[in-house]
Amino acid sequence: MSFPLPEPMRLALAAAADAAGRGEVPVGAVVTRGAEIVAVASNRMRAIGDPTAHAEMEAIRAALATLGTGRLDGCDLWVTLEPCAMCAGAIAHVRIDRIYYGAADAKGGAVAHGPCFFTQPTCHHRPEIYAGLGESEAAAMLKAFFAARR
Amino acid sequence: MSFPLPEPMRLALAAAADAAGRGEVPVGAVVTRGAEIVAVASNRMRAIGDPTAHAEMEAIRAALATLGTGRLDGCDLWVTLEPCAMCAGAIAHVRIDRIYYGAADAKGGAVAHGPCFFTQPTCHHRPEIYAGLGESEAAAMLKAFFAARR
Repeated sequence: MSFPLPEPMRLALAAAADAAGRGEVPVGAVVTRGAEIVAVASNRMRAIGDPTAHAEMEAIRAALATLGTGRLDGCDLWVTLEPCAMCAGAIAHVRIDRIYYGAADAKGGAVAHGPCFFTQPTCHHRPEIYAGLGESEAAAMLKAFFAARR
Repeated sequence: MSFPLPEPMRLALAAAADAAGRGEVPVGAVVTRGAEIVAVASNRMRAIGDPTAHAEMEAIRAALATLGTGRLDGCDLWVTLEPCAMCAGAIAHVRIDRIYYGAADAKGGAVAHGPCFFTQPTCHHRPEIYAGLGESEAAAMLKAFFAARR
């Protein structure tokens, strides 16, 4: 990419790198409201022994706690990897306006792969979706992480 | 039904009734391992201002904290309502063996409706699924709850 990445995606990538340093699968997520950074989080599955502690879930819960609004209308989510079904469901429940994600996840993704959650007729909230921002950085980090574990 | 409901589903229904008493959508969930009750939880969306605090998520997180095993292999989940995509995704992540659910949820369910998560080719863990246990009690509770709010 010839232009700099938007700040929230740079922060999400930094959070992913930080996770890798702690031995966590490198995924980072950021919640913004307008120009405000509301929450920055990364994978904590290993740290707390909870396979549901994905970066998106952590960022959403942190943003709800910070804003105290009970929902995240007017907020955007920036995440380095395509969200899974659990996270896509959570994104719809809290009514995130826009999702920006980096790398595609053909195996576990549920936005453009598998259940394609937001295209289901029963989906009650459809955010705008932007894919590929920071994709190469995010994918390289994941590839290096799993290569080192083989 | 002419035979008594299994204890875990009776506990899940009681947790749902308890939630209704606190003004929460009445859904309850229980995690068992063999004959052991590991966790009992209900909807806390309103209590903590978090639309992701579904009974299943709460029960799963409580069970992980109690067992400290990092996953829930060998455990079953009993829930009064068909899980949504978020909860179905979480169930797969923690590798629950069996799901027993009560009422069907044609609008928000993701097991037998919408994304039919566990039938997707990308789904990495498929529990055994038993539907309809305690269905009439669970559905009546939900119906009464929403009728009172109209």
